[in-house]
Parts: sequence; structure tokens; C-alpha cells
Amino acid sequence: MPSTPTTAPDKGRLLLIPNTLDFGCLDGAEGGAPPDLREVLPMGAITAAAGLTHWIAENAKTTRAFLKRVNDIAPLSAPIQALNIQVLPRPSKGGPKGAGGRADPQLERQMADLLAPALAGHDVGLISEAGLPAVADPGAAVVLAAHRLGLQVLPLSGPSSLVLALAASGLHGQSFAFVGYLPVDAQERAQRIKDLEQVSRKAHQTQLVIETPYRNTALWQALLQHLQGSTLLSVSCGLTLAQGWSRTDTVERWRKQALTLPDDIPTVFSWLAA
Amino acid sequence: MPSTPTTAPDKGRLLLIPNTLDFGCLDGAEGGAPPDLREVLPMGAITAAAGLTHWIAENAKTTRAFLKRVNDIAPLSAPIQALNIQVLPRPSKGGPKGAGGRADPQLERQMADLLAPALAGHDVGLISEAGLPAVADPGAAVVLAAHRLGLQVLPLSGPSSLVLALAASGLHGQSFAFVGYLPVDAQERAQRIKDLEQVSRKAHQTQLVIETPYRNTALWQALLQHLQGSTLLSVSCGLTLAQGWSRTDTVERWRKQALTLPDDIPTVFSWLAA
Repeated sequence: MPSTPTTAPDKGRLLLIPNTLDFGCLDGAEGGAPPDLREVLPMGAITAAAGLTHWIAENAKTTRAFLKRVNDIAPLSAPIQALNIQVLPRPSKGGPKGAGGRADPQLERQMADLLAPALAGHDVGLISEAGLPAVADPGAAVVLAAHRLGLQVLPLSGPSSLVLALAASGLHGQSFAFVGYLPVDAQERAQRIKDLEQVSRKAHQTQLVIETPYRNTALWQALLQHLQGSTLLSVSCGLTLAQGWSRTDTVERWRKQALTLPDDIPTVFSWLAA
Repeated sequence: MPSTPTTAPDKGRLLLIPNTLDFGCLDGAEGGAPPDLREVLPMGAITAAAGLTHWIAENAKTTRAFLKRVNDIAPLSAPIQALNIQVLPRPSKGGPKGAGGRADPQLERQMADLLAPALAGHDVGLISEAGLPAVADPGAAVVLAAHRLGLQVLPLSGPSSLVLALAASGLHGQSFAFVGYLPVDAQERAQRIKDLEQVSRKAHQTQLVIETPYRNTALWQALLQHLQGSTLLSVSCGLTLAQGWSRTDTVERWRKQALTLPDDIPTVFSWLAA
């Protein structure tokens, strides 16, 4: 049995609630109703979500839409309108400072305020627009604040597009890095792609990136242009969606194929230099 | 809608089936029966597993134990003894070459042999002892072989201790690297810890490592000794288990606490240099 570090028993916990990966993909979906949450989320996460009355959300509207889907399976403990849903402040440009261990007293205070319900004894759910909260989104600062306040943090099992893409790639899964978004400027992006290919070669490490869907094609073309022909390049498009797919090939062979990427479906790109 | 790259419709698919994270933790568990799979796995993965008759497994015995738990929820399409379960060859020392894009004709042939049932039209499940297959385990080579053979690869949503630990850490979730195991030799390990702290500082990147549970304490002491005091250090122990916990603090403050890590529970360590 692990010896649990001390946490105050009269305080609430911060529960990290996974969301589906279909955010932004269901608008205009044929047939109306979104897919059953149980296809991609465990019942443990669904029932935990149904029991929470306090939330910290990346987006209040998508959180309510999520809770409506939860309610179809496990009745919520309170009506959606009665729930306390606080929204995470947008991170300032240059990234989420509080999550970097670089002290930012103002952000720390904001995060502590968001966690006031937990200090008062309520379990609080943290939820992102898609996948696991605090991974590739601005939620990490509030998790770090919870640790500072001595609150218990409980991550619940759910889908992460990054590790699903990694698993589906067949690339090295024993050393990998997610490096977020690449620069938008073409020249900077080209340099970054080459730098990351070097890191991949030297450290024998798979590199993963994501892009805003409408820039998928631009990124894809840049990867085909700037990576070496022998590098393995993988694409995972629409993970967990019915029409989702994953493919890996060498850059050399990809260059000979005509691949059309959608401009509205989340896609993960990864590569491993030979 | 994504334009799916061409895959032969008469061939079977390679389904990546998630396992629980309680591998090795249930021996001698009080009360006998293992927890309900639905707590941590989505029904989509459980029903997919129940329908498969062909498997490629890291370990046949643990796969049968998993399928017994599946059968408690969704009846298997064939008795466990009648299932075709092939075991992944142990990777040679020095890491899984086939997954590195470094050609290894013998390994490629072995992997293609494992995938023969898929080429003959059967869906085949790939499963690890814990978590997602092909992430931090030897499964990536068979996934890469599936791509080479033009098979469809379908990753199913499930728990990954690495991203759960990352989410629970509150450390930077927009750039992170998993670097596997650290060297066992104390001097080499010390150097590697310092090198990875440098990478974390320069790239503002969270670093994650795992260790064989009986070495948890040795690794913990090395981290406290060799990381700088201002570095944020996180521990996630027994993720998804009832007694699991996650804690993050600065190395300086960790040094003042007495923390006893279990020698038999999987633990993920991560840090972010200030």
C-alpha cells in the first residue's frame, strides 16, 4: 500500500474528468444525437461526473453539452442550470506561466479563487473541451494550485488523442515527446521541423504535434517538404470518430500519395527519424 | 470528412485494446474479485474485446485473465480456450529496433507472421499487460508492420498511466516527454537526471519516467539528491487504484518530507525545471 501524502480530509478533491474527442466534429452531424458516451468513456468517469455540483471548465457551453450527455446515462445530482461552473481564464500569450513553475502571483491567486469550493469541502471537476484536462490545454495551472493548497487530485481514465495517436503510429512508444503547435510562419516552421527531426534522430524519440484543423494541410505539406525521405511520418485523423483513421509511412512514400486532410477534424502528426 | 487512405477491405483490422492499470496490483488483494472493468474502460473497448477471436499479446496469461473480466460484462464470442492468442517476441536488448524505423528483416518477418490472421480477414486485437498497447511496451513493432501491410489500425480509448500522471501533476502539459527508464547504475542515473533537468529547463518541457516498482525508492532518492531545489517534482502512485494518489511539490520541500513509496505498485515520476 502506498503511504499517501497528507491531505486535509475535510477539503474537497479536484477530479480530472475526461471529455470525448468529438469536440467540434458533431456540428451538422447527420442524424442529430451525439454518440453514446460509454463508447469512449468508462462508467467510472461518467458516474463521477454525474455526482459533481462544482466545475472548473475550459468552456462552460461545451461542459453543459457534455453534462447533458452524462445525464442520458447517469442522472445528474442537480439540474444543469443549478450547477456551479467556473471558467478557466484564457492563458496570456507566451504560454501558461503558472504551470511552468515560474511564479506568477496573480495567476496563483486566480487559481486559488477557482478552487474555493474545494477548500469549502466540495469535490470539484476540472474538464477540458476534449480529452484529458491539463494535457495540451490551459488546465495545468489549476492542478498545480490544487497541489499547493494541499488538495487531493484524482485523474480519471479517459481518451487522450496524443497517446492514442502514438499507439496507432507504430513509432517508438518507449521515448516520445509532445511539443504542441509549430510556428505559423513558414520559415520558422521549416526550421522547427528540421530541429525536431534532429532531436528525434539523436534521442531516438518520436515527436508529436497538433495543429488547428484549418491548418492541417499547410502543416502536412511543410512536413513532406522539410522532413527527410527516410523519416517515418504518421497521421491520426478523427481519433475515436466513426470515420477516424491512422496511417504511417516513410516521407518518401507519402510524397507519392495524394492525401487530402480535412480542415475541420482534429489531427495528430508524429514522426521518427531513421 | 477525412479521405481515408486506401486499405484493403477484405483484410482484418488491428485493434489496439486498452487494458487496466492494475496489472500486478491485485495479487493478494483482499476480497478476491478484481474491480469491474467498466470503472476504467469504456464499453466500446469492452465489447470490441469480447468480439475478437484473434489476439497478439504481451503476455498470454494476463490476456486470458483480462478476457475473463470482459466476459463478466460482455459475453465472449468464443470460449477463452478456443481463442487464438499469439505472444509478442521479447524485444532484444537495446530496445525495439523494428519500432525505430531501423530495418530489421527478421523482426519484420516475425511481425508479419503474427499478423497472418488479419491478412486472412480476421480482426486481430493487440493487448499489453497494462494500459494502451504500443506505448511504453514492445507492441509498436507489430503496429508498424500492420501499416507496412496496408492493414487498418484502430486504437480504442483507454487509460494510459503516463498521461494520467501528467494531467495529475499540474506540470506543463503543452510540452512533455516520456523517456522510459533511467539507467540502473547510480552514476549514470545521476548524470541522466541532470541531463533531463537541463532539457526540461531549456525546452520548458515536463519529463516523465517510470521504474520497475521495486526500484521506486532508489529512483526517488536519486531524484531528490540530483534535481535542483526549485524544480517541481511529481509522483503518481497506483493510478486508477482505490488507494492511488498523485502529489507535486518542489524538490526543496520534498526533501523535508518523509515519503515511503511502495515497492510493488506502478509509479510515474515527472519533473519540470523552474
